[in-house]
Amino acid sequence: MLKSMQNWLLHLKENKVFEAFVIAVIIVSALEIGAKTYELPPVAISLTVGLDIFITLFFLFEISVRFFAESDKKAFFRSGWNVFDTLVVIVSLIPIQDSEMALLARLVRVFRVLRMISIIPELRILINSLLKALPQLGYVVLLLFIIFYIYAAVGSFLFKDINPELWRNIAISMLTLFRIMTFEDWTDVQYETMEVYPMSWIFYMTFIFFTAFAFLNMVIGIVVNVMEEEHAKVRHEEHPEPSMQDLQDEIRALKALIKEKFDKESDNT
Amino acid sequence: MLKSMQNWLLHLKENKVFEAFVIAVIIVSALEIGAKTYELPPVAISLTVGLDIFITLFFLFEISVRFFAESDKKAFFRSGWNVFDTLVVIVSLIPIQDSEMALLARLVRVFRVLRMISIIPELRILINSLLKALPQLGYVVLLLFIIFYIYAAVGSFLFKDINPELWRNIAISMLTLFRIMTFEDWTDVQYETMEVYPMSWIFYMTFIFFTAFAFLNMVIGIVVNVMEEEHAKVRHEEHPEPSMQDLQDEIRALKALIKEKFDKESDNT
Amino acid sequence: MLKSMQNWLLHLKENKVFEAFVIAVIIVSALEIGAKTYELPPVAISLTVGLDIFITLFFLFEISVRFFAESDKKAFFRSGWNVFDTLVVIVSLIPIQDSEMALLARLVRVFRVLRMISIIPELRILINSLLKALPQLGYVVLLLFIIFYIYAAVGSFLFKDINPELWRNIAISMLTLFRIMTFEDWTDVQYETMEVYPMSWIFYMTFIFFTAFAFLNMVIGIVVNVMEEEHAKVRHEEHPEPSMQDLQDEIRALKALIKEKFDKESDNT
Amino acid sequence: MLKSMQNWLLHLKENKVFEAFVIAVIIVSALEIGAKTYELPPVAISLTVGLDIFITLFFLFEISVRFFAESDKKAFFRSGWNVFDTLVVIVSLIPIQDSEMALLARLVRVFRVLRMISIIPELRILINSLLKALPQLGYVVLLLFIIFYIYAAVGSFLFKDINPELWRNIAISMLTLFRIMTFEDWTDVQYETMEVYPMSWIFYMTFIFFTAFAFLNMVIGIVVNVMEEEHAKVRHEEHPEPSMQDLQDEIRALKALIKEKFDKESDNT
Repeated sequence: MLKSMQNWLLHLKENKVFEAFVIAVIIVSALEIGAKTYELPPVAISLTVGLDIFITLFFLFEISVRFFAESDKKAFFRSGWNVFDTLVVIVSLIPIQDSEMALLARLVRVFRVLRMISIIPELRILINSLLKALPQLGYVVLLLFIIFYIYAAVGSFLFKDINPELWRNIAISMLTLFRIMTFEDWTDVQYETMEVYPMSWIFYMTFIFFTAFAFLNMVIGIVVNVMEEEHAKVRHEEHPEPSMQDLQDEIRALKALIKEKFDKESDNT
Repeated sequence: MLKSMQNWLLHLKENKVFEAFVIAVIIVSALEIGAKTYELPPVAISLTVGLDIFITLFFLFEISVRFFAESDKKAFFRSGWNVFDTLVVIVSLIPIQDSEMALLARLVRVFRVLRMISIIPELRILINSLLKALPQLGYVVLLLFIIFYIYAAVGSFLFKDINPELWRNIAISMLTLFRIMTFEDWTDVQYETMEVYPMSWIFYMTFIFFTAFAFLNMVIGIVVNVMEEEHAKVRHEEHPEPSMQDLQDEIRALKALIKEKFDKESDNT
Repeated sequence: MLKSMQNWLLHLKENKVFEAFVIAVIIVSALEIGAKTYELPPVAISLTVGLDIFITLFFLFEISVRFFAESDKKAFFRSGWNVFDTLVVIVSLIPIQDSEMALLARLVRVFRVLRMISIIPELRILINSLLKALPQLGYVVLLLFIIFYIYAAVGSFLFKDINPELWRNIAISMLTLFRIMTFEDWTDVQYETMEVYPMSWIFYMTFIFFTAFAFLNMVIGIVVNVMEEEHAKVRHEEHPEPSMQDLQDEIRALKALIKEKFDKESDNT
Repeated sequence: MLKSMQNWLLHLKENKVFEAFVIAVIIVSALEIGAKTYELPPVAISLTVGLDIFITLFFLFEISVRFFAESDKKAFFRSGWNVFDTLVVIVSLIPIQDSEMALLARLVRVFRVLRMISIIPELRILINSLLKALPQLGYVVLLLFIIFYIYAAVGSFLFKDINPELWRNIAISMLTLFRIMTFEDWTDVQYETMEVYPMSWIFYMTFIFFTAFAFLNMVIGIVVNVMEEEHAKVRHEEHPEPSMQDLQDEIRALKALIKEKFDKESDNT
């Protein structure tokens, strides 16, 4: 009986109508979250409460279908996307009745929209290719953090008394430096400190040079690399041409064949 | 008689002088639209009215020539550029006498300038190569939209009461987030919310990281890909070198030839 | 005698000390122009007058040396850099005594600094590679101009009465659009027009999308292309490897040789 | 005895626990610098004084271990990273008791954080690949400097009386131009001068075009080049495939072998 149940779930899971209905419910849940940011009449509010319960239960049902349809329960959790979906469903199940926590409850429901990514295969590929670049980017981010840390310490030591609002301590200084890195009203910050330290433009110029520039350089380099590898792999899979090595092997085999023959003939004569 | 008419039209269409005249009329229509944005003396205004009628009729004539010169009427509409030209001409033919609609009439005429793109082959190639990148970009735009949607919902829930002007509802929030993505006075928005939620810089930092950065990465990747493919195709067409496969086939044919010969000799001796 | 004179000039031109002296004079002329932007004491001003005359005469002398040292006078002007140097020298020779023209005279002398580019070979290579990308960029610039023109016409029609300062006519509108393209306080412009036309954000969003984005895409594409070609050319010159075609030819020659031999043997037996 | 001492130091240097302790001390010294930017209670301040002395002595000890463990003393200083570490340690040893110099003493200690880069191999690789691009970038920076210098001279001559704050002399003008290059409130500068010289938008447009654009172009080009070379080198080392030249050599050897044989046979018959 369990077996037939599993088969029935598998059929349900792969049913096109069921799949379309799942996507529809995800879109409706996204629209509901958007609608809640507007001033709604009381009728609509009570309607969203019912809708919330339905969506939560449906998501729970859908993830259960996918879990029980899978014959190998361990394999189910080996896929990062299944873990992600399960977490989103579980978190939105936590009952929050406390009126003070109402805001938190709303925020948690927003994350349901993320299921849009896990349901569309093309978006999953995009996210995967982005994750693949992360390990290489990790060290770039670390390098940037060190540059930020050093400049924030120097900036805090020098400019603390000029404008505590911007250079109060190392954390606030790093926020100010991030603002400078995005070129957002950075000259106001610069002109202010140049009145006390006329040479402080060196601080800003070198910082902009090191971060914005080094960052851009390295990001582009890594992206080009990753994309090139992807591209080469695809090209190789589509047209599996013989390699230089294959050709050399063929030529050598031919040579060996001829040589052997010639040697035999020489022996005969 | 119809046949000779068509031949005459074909000759007219391919006439260098006629072609130059078409381009001249398009440029004049563009200049007229520019001139209308200035304060013009009454004489010039009445002149532009006459010019408008002439340009409209000439464009109608030119598209008719190209349509009737084409022997296969279906093929004419298979080219996207022909459909585009026909639409521009038809829309500018719609008579708008209503004084309230005068503005709309003006706007419609502006689109005639777009014919400049369809008449210059190099611009058509540029547009085509841009359109080719669109399907790949479609999913990047969808991913960005989902990121915007989630951050706009969270932003609206949290910051609605701090500044309704910027976070009133999800639509206004998305506009504010677009502004933040372009780094336009984004620190003003940030400092305002940091007074209530001191940790809200996490909201802005992660948003900037996800959009500006992920967007840049993926766009560059796609562009590099598309351009590389184009480049490889051109290079391949210009120098059609034998492939590795061709070389391998040649070597194997040689081997077979030698082997067959050797086998025959072995049989003889 | 003319011949020996030419030889002497050629020796002078290729003399290392003379070359170094030319670069020194160019640097001094650049420093003099920079110094003139400061408030100078009367002594220094009279000194710069003498220095100006010396530099002008020396540049005239140097270009004459290079011109007369060249045996083929036509070849001299075939090099764009020589024409450039000659023009800079001639323009700075024009006597301007009119006190009103003093500003113009100063500006003309600034262009002498450009000789720094023509004297350093590496900078000439950089400029050359930039010029090589220009023809491809020409059409991108034309396409951008058409987009600017259309949006400026529409913007002028719609927003003229909202803020004549920014949308008075098509020329002023294009300047405003360029500002929007650089993301410089563009939301101020947007919020202003959104009070009258709430949907005008579509105007700004599509404009930013079309220009900033399309521009970036195409520029990157072209740069990657040009650099790749340069790179491939250099690599090819450094390691002139046999091509696939060469290998195929060799294999075919070998095959012909063997076949001919085998056919002869078959005839013999 | 010296020999056994050196062996013991070498063991200490390569000890995993010692290595981890060095990294821990570097992180503690970085955290201490960050902590000092906050208002600290007197107890914490006296604690940092002791910590400072310990870190300085430990760094001196660690660099000594690495120096004496190295058998070839000259080779030690051939590595740029060792020189860098030694300099950081020596500079932080300089005793500064003068209360006025306290700020300088603090700044010097900040540079200790840079040791984080020299201790992590991946960061060293990143820095090395950045340094490799520098020689090529040198000329781009020179070209940009010349463009800045010319525009700053012209800007100073023309706009000095309009706003001395921004165009007082060539140095201040270059700072203003750098601000324009980052698009930071550049339209304010432009609108101000356009009131006197209505055509001065040409000055700003051409400057933005030349710098922002040329800069972007060349930087991207160089980065793509450097990364491609790196990539090609790595790929070559991982899969040392036979080159086209190798294949050609093999085919020719085969041909020579066959030809020699055939010639001998022809002689026999």
